[in-house]
Amino acid sequence: MGNGPGSNQEAVRRNNLSRILGHVHRAGQISRSTLTACTGLNRSTVGTLVADLASRGLVEEVSPVGRGTPGRPSPLVQVPESSIVVLACDVEVDSLSCAVAGLGGRVLARRQVPRARGRLSPQETVADLVALANEVLSVETVRDLPLVGVGIAVVGLVRRDDGHVHLAPNLGWRDVPLGQMMSEALGLDVPVFVGNEADLGALAEHTRGAGAGVDDMLFISGEVGVGAGVIVAGQPLVGADGYAGEVGHMTVNPFGVECRCGSRGCWETEIGERALLREARRPDTGGRDAVAALLREAAAGSPTALAAMESVGTWLGVGLAGLINIFNPSRIVLGGLFARTYPYLAETVRLELDRRALFPARRLVDITSARLGDDSELMGAVELAFAPVLADPTIVPVRDPDRAADRGGAARAVVASDPAPA
Amino acid sequence: MGNGPGSNQEAVRRNNLSRILGHVHRAGQISRSTLTACTGLNRSTVGTLVADLASRGLVEEVSPVGRGTPGRPSPLVQVPESSIVVLACDVEVDSLSCAVAGLGGRVLARRQVPRARGRLSPQETVADLVALANEVLSVETVRDLPLVGVGIAVVGLVRRDDGHVHLAPNLGWRDVPLGQMMSEALGLDVPVFVGNEADLGALAEHTRGAGAGVDDMLFISGEVGVGAGVIVAGQPLVGADGYAGEVGHMTVNPFGVECRCGSRGCWETEIGERALLREARRPDTGGRDAVAALLREAAAGSPTALAAMESVGTWLGVGLAGLINIFNPSRIVLGGLFARTYPYLAETVRLELDRRALFPARRLVDITSARLGDDSELMGAVELAFAPVLADPTIVPVRDPDRAADRGGAARAVVASDPAPA
Repeated sequence: MGNGPGSNQEAVRRNNLSRILGHVHRAGQISRSTLTACTGLNRSTVGTLVADLASRGLVEEVSPVGRGTPGRPSPLVQVPESSIVVLACDVEVDSLSCAVAGLGGRVLARRQVPRARGRLSPQETVADLVALANEVLSVETVRDLPLVGVGIAVVGLVRRDDGHVHLAPNLGWRDVPLGQMMSEALGLDVPVFVGNEADLGALAEHTRGAGAGVDDMLFISGEVGVGAGVIVAGQPLVGADGYAGEVGHMTVNPFGVECRCGSRGCWETEIGERALLREARRPDTGGRDAVAALLREAAAGSPTALAAMESVGTWLGVGLAGLINIFNPSRIVLGGLFARTYPYLAETVRLELDRRALFPARRLVDITSARLGDDSELMGAVELAFAPVLADPTIVPVRDPDRAADRGGAARAVVASDPAPA
Repeated sequence: MGNGPGSNQEAVRRNNLSRILGHVHRAGQISRSTLTACTGLNRSTVGTLVADLASRGLVEEVSPVGRGTPGRPSPLVQVPESSIVVLACDVEVDSLSCAVAGLGGRVLARRQVPRARGRLSPQETVADLVALANEVLSVETVRDLPLVGVGIAVVGLVRRDDGHVHLAPNLGWRDVPLGQMMSEALGLDVPVFVGNEADLGALAEHTRGAGAGVDDMLFISGEVGVGAGVIVAGQPLVGADGYAGEVGHMTVNPFGVECRCGSRGCWETEIGERALLREARRPDTGGRDAVAALLREAAAGSPTALAAMESVGTWLGVGLAGLINIFNPSRIVLGGLFARTYPYLAETVRLELDRRALFPARRLVDITSARLGDDSELMGAVELAFAPVLADPTIVPVRDPDRAADRGGAARAVVASDPAPA
């Protein structure tokens, strides 16, 4: 076993670099002694690994502010203010978002535009998204930072390998090679990854949200549709081809209304935006504004609004009970519509879980709202885009000191990989 | 980084030993060149690792029979006829089984006894099981082989850490410390592991049955109850506390009949043994004999029997469609009751999947019967008991040549760990 790039020792080193960078990325700032404790590596090994990451501009060390306690405090390792960045996009039914973010999940620039229901074709979506991306990439504070990847969240079934969107009922899409289209239209020479919106929401909440540190969690989100991202033993559930987590299409009411997917009584038809509006005897095409109005009425104590909430809460409970029995998660994080309605549904959901979830699994689960609010999916796209670097930090080259000097300084200099043609 | 037991190099070596032994255990016999290809390790490293495993009596090398082709054929690595063994037990509602098995899943001795419905208390079950275990452990061909662990499959919710059975509705058990009770009653000084029957069935079918080589699979089995074991990305789904996979208790028909778990319209109430008998207008307490009679009638073309099959098939399809949408498995393996009835249900299930499962996930899945038949669960208990040795083969000591000689031979000598006080 030699020391070459293919050797076991080299693989161990890359894996350790990945672990260290992962901790810094999740925490933003962490002491060297905590890194030593978390990784189980010895002090000097951690020092060497941190120095390697620093030479690539991925982390920096700073001295902690003295706390008046005896002994030399442990140096802090943190994400540098300027380092590599990614472009994240979120394709929703009623809006498009783009953000540029750095390690640590720091958003450096972002733009969101509402979009007319008439501009949902794949071609128009890509054109609008590229215009928005170019706008956000040319913001002065980020345009010189090296871009390492693009992540796109979309409300549909996505094949992970190549970002092919097989089916997005609420966009009216079928078989759209979104990854390839965006890659060509952006022309950025960095990898473009596409993921299901709810899967990415789960990833973000697991990395730095309400599910941080929780190995078995469900993220249930949605507006019109209902999606879920599932974290199993600390890893996202993707399934054989990346289509897992479509809990919105488990049958909960075989005698219920027809679903856009062609089935009947899917969970989404009983708990989505349309179900809520239907139960409140409103037109079910009112969208977010109609839901916002209903929430205000519920807050004011309107019996019609509260009854609608209770009905949806019952079905939310029926489905969640099944998922608790199936997954035995320790936490369920509700996003989107469900984060907003949950205060009015919680009691009904609790009753239904008591009736339908098996006690040993039920008593252990807690239900909470997404901590990243409506940003979970976009922040998940950030994680998706950073994944290759986090898995193998050595793909970012050691920076060239001359070039760093050109840019005017050592401490803030970015890594010397090719800057993105933004 | 030194070479001591805690070093990275030592961890890498243990991991490689684990990979090699895993391949041999799954295949029974495998050529050294295939091992090299499967592991990506180089030829000489594989040779060293195989020699290490052989020194512990875990594998042996044999010369392949000449095939008349030119060149020296690669040596074959195989499970020795006599090596370490485990005790596996299966606690079912209507029977108890015990087996002694070696690496490669070879069953060396086994016993099964039916049991009266009146002998289901935990104390009586443990007493009956220990008697059966002692019987099977004292069979002449196995009694001198070193026992390394005990695995127990049980129809209930099991906490993996300590084998505590939280709930087993079909046995009428609640909070039974089965792992501890069996450990004390057996007095064997080896670890005792307890797992949910369906989880273990999935493990066995995944290791050496209909799901071999399939990374995302569901195993759906049952008689009275319905259980599932789920393999996600090659690993068993266990959940936060080991209770995952209770798909029998997802609600498929909220207006359906009451379930033993306290809920209503659970999948199990629509597809289990009782549902089938109910639909055929038979007393639903008839058990396996009544089901066997119904199967014979279906085979003879009885319209009542076929209609009952069709009804259950519809509900089986409703639930499977939901699970396909949730897990995106590439294979579903049916065991127990469902393996026996599937020939009569297949067409109905197919229609329901076409209606209810999302096309991209649905078109990729295939449905098949358990290859291990009614032995899936028992063989899963074998895997559970072997897991620690498979994860770290170095816990089996290098054999002592003197002692091996005492036992009368080198080639077949067992490893020199303490023999079990069977």
